[in-house]
Amino acid sequence: MGLPENKRLNLSGERFGVVYHLAGDEQTVRRRCQEVRVEQTVEFPVDCLPVGDIPEHLLGRIEAFEPLGQGRFEVLISYASELAGREFVQLLNVLYGMISHQPDVSLERLELPSSLLSHYGGPRFGIRGLRERLGADARPLVCTAVKPVGLSAVELARLAHVFALGGIDIIKDDHGLCNQTLSPFRERVERCTAAVARANEMSGGRTIYAPNVTGPAEELVDRALFAQEAGAGGLMICPGLTGLDQMRRLAEEPRLDLPLLAHCTWVGSWLPLGGSGISDFALYGQLMRLAGADSVIFLGYGGRFDDSREASRQTVAGCLAPMGHIRAVFPMVGGGMALERLPELLTFYGAETILLVGGGLHTHGPDLFENCRKFRQAVEAAPVSMPTR
Amino acid sequence: MGLPENKRLNLSGERFGVVYHLAGDEQTVRRRCQEVRVEQTVEFPVDCLPVGDIPEHLLGRIEAFEPLGQGRFEVLISYASELAGREFVQLLNVLYGMISHQPDVSLERLELPSSLLSHYGGPRFGIRGLRERLGADARPLVCTAVKPVGLSAVELARLAHVFALGGIDIIKDDHGLCNQTLSPFRERVERCTAAVARANEMSGGRTIYAPNVTGPAEELVDRALFAQEAGAGGLMICPGLTGLDQMRRLAEEPRLDLPLLAHCTWVGSWLPLGGSGISDFALYGQLMRLAGADSVIFLGYGGRFDDSREASRQTVAGCLAPMGHIRAVFPMVGGGMALERLPELLTFYGAETILLVGGGLHTHGPDLFENCRKFRQAVEAAPVSMPTR
Repeated sequence: MGLPENKRLNLSGERFGVVYHLAGDEQTVRRRCQEVRVEQTVEFPVDCLPVGDIPEHLLGRIEAFEPLGQGRFEVLISYASELAGREFVQLLNVLYGMISHQPDVSLERLELPSSLLSHYGGPRFGIRGLRERLGADARPLVCTAVKPVGLSAVELARLAHVFALGGIDIIKDDHGLCNQTLSPFRERVERCTAAVARANEMSGGRTIYAPNVTGPAEELVDRALFAQEAGAGGLMICPGLTGLDQMRRLAEEPRLDLPLLAHCTWVGSWLPLGGSGISDFALYGQLMRLAGADSVIFLGYGGRFDDSREASRQTVAGCLAPMGHIRAVFPMVGGGMALERLPELLTFYGAETILLVGGGLHTHGPDLFENCRKFRQAVEAAPVSMPTR
Repeated sequence: MGLPENKRLNLSGERFGVVYHLAGDEQTVRRRCQEVRVEQTVEFPVDCLPVGDIPEHLLGRIEAFEPLGQGRFEVLISYASELAGREFVQLLNVLYGMISHQPDVSLERLELPSSLLSHYGGPRFGIRGLRERLGADARPLVCTAVKPVGLSAVELARLAHVFALGGIDIIKDDHGLCNQTLSPFRERVERCTAAVARANEMSGGRTIYAPNVTGPAEELVDRALFAQEAGAGGLMICPGLTGLDQMRRLAEEPRLDLPLLAHCTWVGSWLPLGGSGISDFALYGQLMRLAGADSVIFLGYGGRFDDSREASRQTVAGCLAPMGHIRAVFPMVGGGMALERLPELLTFYGAETILLVGGGLHTHGPDLFENCRKFRQAVEAAPVSMPTR
């Protein structure tokens, strides 16, 4: 079911493709496809278009139309690349701008030619670059968060120290930590980077700390530069809150050279619900990568959220799918993962994953250091294999 | 139904309130409220919270819980203002960050104390300021867009000239126009502002042109400053694409002094669908105002989109509701409004509205200038009254 591969990819470099799913009876869906190709481009009464001035190729073109069964249809619409220009926000607008207001139409997948991809640097590090930084080949990585909000910078740094000694690869801020007086950004970054550096010296480890630089639009780059200067090994940003384009900006900022973790807070609004939205594959995978995320934090199945195995599969596939020169990136699975589930998680997600256990490290037993060691050891001991999902 | 007023407002200045709607059986909804108050704050296993270090007041507090009938419940949760700090993105995070991933929970309304509002300037102009700029008291304003994408800057400027002569108050860019080679931003802004200025000189009118400054994060302020320098009378931004915080940044940028129009492209992803999302009242009204929009473009009922009368009512109410020192702003109704519907629109929306007719000006008849005059005259002739919605 769905479009055959050859229909998907038969696009010239001057057009890019978008696969949508629509629901309804076939006649209605066919009419709505005609509306989409206008709405997302000229948004003008077609009968009144100034003839000759508006070349036909500027309208969306329906390249393929396939029934999926149960009243759902997969359609490939191509758009002229010049509509998106070289700007990510304008690309978003063509992909899903006004039709975000329509029921029963979801964006499933992008087909971007290399001419369009060439405007984007994508992730600086990707999977390979991040593994090199961390000295961790061919195993899943382990991550946790300093939290909760309410602790002082001193207390958060104490946690970071224990986590690093315990062998956690990546220590990130909780997304609820920004620049509150409870633990101001600069103080937190300085204390946590110092604590992790001390631990690395003691252990010989290469743990990195990634503070949450999410903040006012006019301060974002400064926070990132401050963190780098202070010795942070990565940066976390919440692109749902700041806009995806702010992440792209950090990824392309020439003064920065740190991996970016994209946190999924607020991103739920964009995911499919009730038939509309952007698929986990396209959003966590294709769009986040285009916007420069080296790792994408998402909510795994079986945690605190009701996310499905299918959503997890899609996210992982989107992070790893070929995309021209844009690097493959680490899916980071979190959202209530428990240490008790490690064997299952390792089997499902395989080696090209970061496992994020936050609160679960605290509930597993009274000795936080020991819990971290168990977490890391379980991952080291796991047979390196392709996932079975 | 719903919470009585006194329950809504009984919050100290140190907390702010959020009204959510949840769906399910009462026991489940009560349990989920407990989860929300944790998820949106400490996001930590409550049994493991470091006692003493995390004061109880940092957790969300369930202030009121009322059945709405049909398995829906209205709940008021208050949060400590220090969690949001002074930063808009962090406020968004507390309001709806992680629960954006949950089904059947919508954000309906904010109750923000003046202490929290004091961190925000809000709209520079609001309804009164925009009326002064345009010399238009006590009547709805009229707006149209230069479009479609594909026309050259010369052709778009020719349209702008006709619109201004015809008495349109606000001429904005189509949201599909950004900085494509088809009509580059700077050339378009220069030509359109000049065309509108010439028309104003001829007619004695005070029409303003508001270019779409939506663009890369690092160029947004420069585009806005360029437009102001070139003589633009307003700016349009698409906060769905850039992030709401980029609009706030423009509203607070001291070198700028222009009204901001917020366009609704991509915003559909945030609106309620299938029981989750942010209400039209809270999103178009409260959040857009807090982020500095002087007018909010939304999709009216009965147009190209399936929006309901209730959604239109909510949007208008949100734009006009008292909100401390944050100014009331113009709802701008568009999305396929036809000139033929003017009497109905004027009755429904009343005087404190901007009517946006885009494509409808072109389909009404062959004489664009005459159509603009009819549009303006109908609005001038309308009895000034409170709406009957």
